[in-house]
Amino acid sequence: MFDHRKYRPFTPITLTDRQWPNKQLTTAPHWCSVDLRDGNQALINPMSVEKKTELFQLLVNIGFKEIEVGFPSASQPDFDFVRKLIEEKHIPDDVTVQVLVQAREELISRTFEALKGVKQAIVHVYNSTSTVQREQVFGLDREGIKAIAVKGATLLKTYAAQYPNTRWEFQYSPESFTGTELDYAVDVCDAVIDVWEPEKGQQVIINLPSTVEMSTPNVFADQIEWFCRHLKKRDQVRICLHTHNDRGCAVAAAELGILAGADRVEGTLMGNGERTGNMDVITMAMNLYSQGIDPKLDLSNIKEINRTVEHCTELPVPARHPWAGELVYTAFSGSHQDAIRKSIAYHKDHNLPHWEVAYLPIDPLDIGREYEAVVRINSQSGKGGVALVLERDFGITLPKWLHAPISQVVQKATESTGQEISSQRIRELFDQYFVATPHAQKLQGYELHTEHGGVMLNAEIGTLHLKGQGNGAIEALTQALSESASCSMKVTHFDENALGSGSDATARACVALNVDGIDVYGVAEATDTTAASLQALLSAFSRSPAADKQQAA
Amino acid sequence: MFDHRKYRPFTPITLTDRQWPNKQLTTAPHWCSVDLRDGNQALINPMSVEKKTELFQLLVNIGFKEIEVGFPSASQPDFDFVRKLIEEKHIPDDVTVQVLVQAREELISRTFEALKGVKQAIVHVYNSTSTVQREQVFGLDREGIKAIAVKGATLLKTYAAQYPNTRWEFQYSPESFTGTELDYAVDVCDAVIDVWEPEKGQQVIINLPSTVEMSTPNVFADQIEWFCRHLKKRDQVRICLHTHNDRGCAVAAAELGILAGADRVEGTLMGNGERTGNMDVITMAMNLYSQGIDPKLDLSNIKEINRTVEHCTELPVPARHPWAGELVYTAFSGSHQDAIRKSIAYHKDHNLPHWEVAYLPIDPLDIGREYEAVVRINSQSGKGGVALVLERDFGITLPKWLHAPISQVVQKATESTGQEISSQRIRELFDQYFVATPHAQKLQGYELHTEHGGVMLNAEIGTLHLKGQGNGAIEALTQALSESASCSMKVTHFDENALGSGSDATARACVALNVDGIDVYGVAEATDTTAASLQALLSAFSRSPAADKQQAA
Repeated sequence: MFDHRKYRPFTPITLTDRQWPNKQLTTAPHWCSVDLRDGNQALINPMSVEKKTELFQLLVNIGFKEIEVGFPSASQPDFDFVRKLIEEKHIPDDVTVQVLVQAREELISRTFEALKGVKQAIVHVYNSTSTVQREQVFGLDREGIKAIAVKGATLLKTYAAQYPNTRWEFQYSPESFTGTELDYAVDVCDAVIDVWEPEKGQQVIINLPSTVEMSTPNVFADQIEWFCRHLKKRDQVRICLHTHNDRGCAVAAAELGILAGADRVEGTLMGNGERTGNMDVITMAMNLYSQGIDPKLDLSNIKEINRTVEHCTELPVPARHPWAGELVYTAFSGSHQDAIRKSIAYHKDHNLPHWEVAYLPIDPLDIGREYEAVVRINSQSGKGGVALVLERDFGITLPKWLHAPISQVVQKATESTGQEISSQRIRELFDQYFVATPHAQKLQGYELHTEHGGVMLNAEIGTLHLKGQGNGAIEALTQALSESASCSMKVTHFDENALGSGSDATARACVALNVDGIDVYGVAEATDTTAASLQALLSAFSRSPAADKQQAA
Repeated sequence: MFDHRKYRPFTPITLTDRQWPNKQLTTAPHWCSVDLRDGNQALINPMSVEKKTELFQLLVNIGFKEIEVGFPSASQPDFDFVRKLIEEKHIPDDVTVQVLVQAREELISRTFEALKGVKQAIVHVYNSTSTVQREQVFGLDREGIKAIAVKGATLLKTYAAQYPNTRWEFQYSPESFTGTELDYAVDVCDAVIDVWEPEKGQQVIINLPSTVEMSTPNVFADQIEWFCRHLKKRDQVRICLHTHNDRGCAVAAAELGILAGADRVEGTLMGNGERTGNMDVITMAMNLYSQGIDPKLDLSNIKEINRTVEHCTELPVPARHPWAGELVYTAFSGSHQDAIRKSIAYHKDHNLPHWEVAYLPIDPLDIGREYEAVVRINSQSGKGGVALVLERDFGITLPKWLHAPISQVVQKATESTGQEISSQRIRELFDQYFVATPHAQKLQGYELHTEHGGVMLNAEIGTLHLKGQGNGAIEALTQALSESASCSMKVTHFDENALGSGSDATARACVALNVDGIDVYGVAEATDTTAASLQALLSAFSRSPAADKQQAA
């Protein structure tokens, strides 16, 4: 039954002198990928050894220096995978693998067995410390649960001593930390650190998991700041965060937790993991990147990352996934498209040193995505969008006064179908409504000469011969046409430009006419600029009702 | 090129005396759905009128009282849809529709035309105010942009006066608010409110969009607190938030923004919207719900919501989407499964008034999801998971000492395939490895009588006749079997329970034997409790190598 009264609000710690909200992110945290452990264990089909190897390689290529590769004491495939990594020498010298284990001797013993011969490794031991887990799952009091942690820590030290050729690092998680009383969490972690006795200059890792996200991210940050302040040997500890996304705020919690003093973050590519998933490393790293902070991960080929993650997890990357989704660099809204167009042009013109483009927090090219994907046209798009598509996909730069007319044609086409429209179809509509001209209005040839301070035009148009005069060729043709069709006619816009350089370059002419009060438009191309402008005028004229009344002079 | 140096960090406002981090969420904000506007305009295929009507109905059913239904002046389908809603009387009396419009007269005029005859409506006017938009897109200074806003506000008032039978509410957005200098944003909004002159008791809406998410959510909250403190007529304004998800923190930003003083939130179901999407109302509402706060929305049928959203947007709801995704109430990890099982049992036993179950922030049943989906079994699952599946799907409750043996069998099966295993297959493995017994160990009949203070057993087993004696039937059979097979045999566990009530109920017996140092297990059912226990013992014995040596006594 849908009844909120069966739930209780989370009780936050009182910390009125918190400092984290005054801080800003300035460097990337130490990253640890848990794709091969937390991510893998949450899949419908756990990864095969081949997929694990592929994903491990991707993580190394991206630049992760710490990678949790499994829970070898709990699963034979994980054990085998760790052995394969070590025996086949897949682990680069600057990468440290990490494995998870519960604080139980038979599991710890098996874990060290799995790691035999590794150059360096982090052994990550955990037990659950929350009130719910103590009371409901383990039936133990504070001391009982703390004893499990201390025993686990002691066993790690004992077993590590048996393998002196490996450089060991120890990590402890008070699992379900967010549901644990803070003073007790500090007490347990202090006890674990006391067992490990890190020497001067050495550090151990204390990982504080938001195993289930239980509060707004600012409350989590308060917890982290409080914890960091109260831990006895803070400077000999790397504080690590491991957030989950139950409330959709795993990234926010990690970011605020870093402000609150943490040094390291565990997460996965695209946020794969139990239930709603883990903290998404891609999102957090790109958030840093977009603020001018070196993320210390190379995400330049996001498409490849997407492909590998989708292949290995069998879960699609959602279309709206921050930074990586298919639709993220796409603007449908006309005003957005227009602003993006102007903004990119402004950047080019002003040669701005920093990227600041409306609606595009980064240049998609940075991560191998493309401008081409930025604009799609549907019935919600404005005139700027259509013009951009013609320019982008066909090199057709239209004068501004033609944006609205072409946009109206496209909008009508999309409204009737309700569908997105392809750039090819936009091009077809442009050709059909602005370029195509019936034979009757095709310029077959012309003769032009000055006379009485003006020009005189003789033109073969379709099957007609027309004569006109004026200040220039355009005016002469206008005069000839208005006479032959007995209509009033005014050129309201005229633009012509060369499509390349050199004297043989094609020119494109665009003409807007008002014929008997009706606006019509025409576009034409020719190597002869005069022919182009006359044909554009004829093309526009052909779209007016008056064209049907035309007779030879 | 992947180079963070082309980006600059966001400059936060200085607000060292911020109060929002000391606050907690206690009530739901006013919700406004923008599914039919922001959501729709970001779709590859905009919704048809039928789909819009379907989604509008869903929003009404969920309980939204304010619904932005379109941008009627920018799109003919939006115009037609608004007319349809009004003319066909789809809008309940307690629901207010909202429409968006740019601050331009021809669009505002057309907007009021679209709304003709509506009982009440919010007209939402906007213009862009950020530095980037002012400089790069509009080429206007602060005063020029403010004049657009003031003119828009004036036009709204003028046109509204022409339709006195409608109860009008006005909303203004300084679009791209997060990129706008705060003092300037306040200045523009003050000017707009001055035009509208809300009377005592009346309120207008100022909507502060994070059009593009540009900072960590705490910085956004600082902006909102600063804005609320400096706005002149704060008590005559509903402050509204409209966050986007570019940094994956739209929900966090809205939550912290509410702490910082906002009253109202615009968002969409599942976070559909431009690029990475809008704030997801479902997530924020469920976040409140899970903290004991009435969300004022009825999300009891999340499956139906998913179906409708997927149908209308043609975008799938991701499997890990908070609260709504397919995998959200699924635990794969063995320790999680075990804890969930114990936790649910603890809740039943102790009749706890509040829900506090490990790894399950809410009871999935509340929103029409099911416990059945909680546990799936793969090679990462622990013994608790397998036991839970047998209990849940087949009503087979096994004694605790049998969890590990059955789990080992299942784990071996999943490790060899690497796939998830169905509950049917788990049942088959259970039957094969614990129940099935060769004919040679089938109990055909028995005779049991007391003698010399003990019992004497005569049993027809397969084709053999065995005789044994002991303190009870089990001991007598053990003695008979160990003699016939010349082996040592010890019953290490025995459990039997009735599967229903009444004297004719079937009983299930479970036996663990140690035969010549090897542990074997057997399970049997029978209406006769003695027969069940003897057969379970025989079933276990049949799995020991000693069974092959057996000979008639």
